[in-house]
Amino acid sequence: MTGTAFQDRYPEEFSHCFGCGRSNPSGHKLKSHWDGDATVARFRPHEYHTGGVPGNVYGGLIASLMDCHGTASAAAAAARAEGDPGQDNPLRRYVTASLTVNYRRPTPMGLDLEVRAAGFRIDGRKVTMDLTLSANGEVCADGTMLAVRLRDDPPAPSQDQD
Amino acid sequence: MTGTAFQDRYPEEFSHCFGCGRSNPSGHKLKSHWDGDATVARFRPHEYHTGGVPGNVYGGLIASLMDCHGTASAAAAAARAEGDPGQDNPLRRYVTASLTVNYRRPTPMGLDLEVRAAGFRIDGRKVTMDLTLSANGEVCADGTMLAVRLRDDPPAPSQDQD
Repeated sequence: MTGTAFQDRYPEEFSHCFGCGRSNPSGHKLKSHWDGDATVARFRPHEYHTGGVPGNVYGGLIASLMDCHGTASAAAAAARAEGDPGQDNPLRRYVTASLTVNYRRPTPMGLDLEVRAAGFRIDGRKVTMDLTLSANGEVCADGTMLAVRLRDDPPAPSQDQD
Repeated sequence: MTGTAFQDRYPEEFSHCFGCGRSNPSGHKLKSHWDGDATVARFRPHEYHTGGVPGNVYGGLIASLMDCHGTASAAAAAARAEGDPGQDNPLRRYVTASLTVNYRRPTPMGLDLEVRAAGFRIDGRKVTMDLTLSANGEVCADGTMLAVRLRDDPPAPSQDQD
């Protein structure tokens, strides 16, 4: 959990996401880092993030956290595979093509939530991964994501446009 | 789009969801209704709901809207199958077991988004359905949901506890 967060390495143009953009004053500002071969982000829901069942976090927030952590992790995993020097080296922007969330048990309010991604499979512009969201060491949700790199991402001016 | 919204028929205890609870002053207050054999909800994102790519809605909101519309639609579909009189008849609370969202194209900011659910399959406490999210008549995301009825939902005091 040291060094610059993945989301803080996006070019300014791509830094306004409600879920994780450093330049969105209203948003969650989720921050993701490497933890060995996995990635991790932590987030404490606000009291108003309650779900339909009292005391539980609402499902949309859980999907949102997994989504933003996943796209940032895709960017970091692809960069690492190409010898990423880390720190402030810009990351290319990935977007979600498909996200599946399995809600395994209620996610309790009042605790830090830990989102993890692992098992990165890189195939050209596509990155797939496995995701979990835990509270107090217990997995409350898991899932999978397919993220895809934008074609016109600024750090790669020569990429093809097929 | 007449009559009481599904979410306004939840018992007070289950009306605090950030995504769709009438009693959550900070939340989205999503409202879902029948439209023939399908269900529909509409939502206009705020300017701060921007995604990682300028001009596009952030993916977490899209998942959230599909999630809240889906669980409410599960409740309404199950009630209709049992001869629901509609109006203010309380709906039983469903929660999401699994949600898959496929992001087909960018969802533009500045427009009303329409979320639809259809193809309800009811199997005991489980309801599955197909979901779409459209802007300006174009499907931007689609997906599927499995929702499950809570066992201890107040309107059904005699249900089993297996």
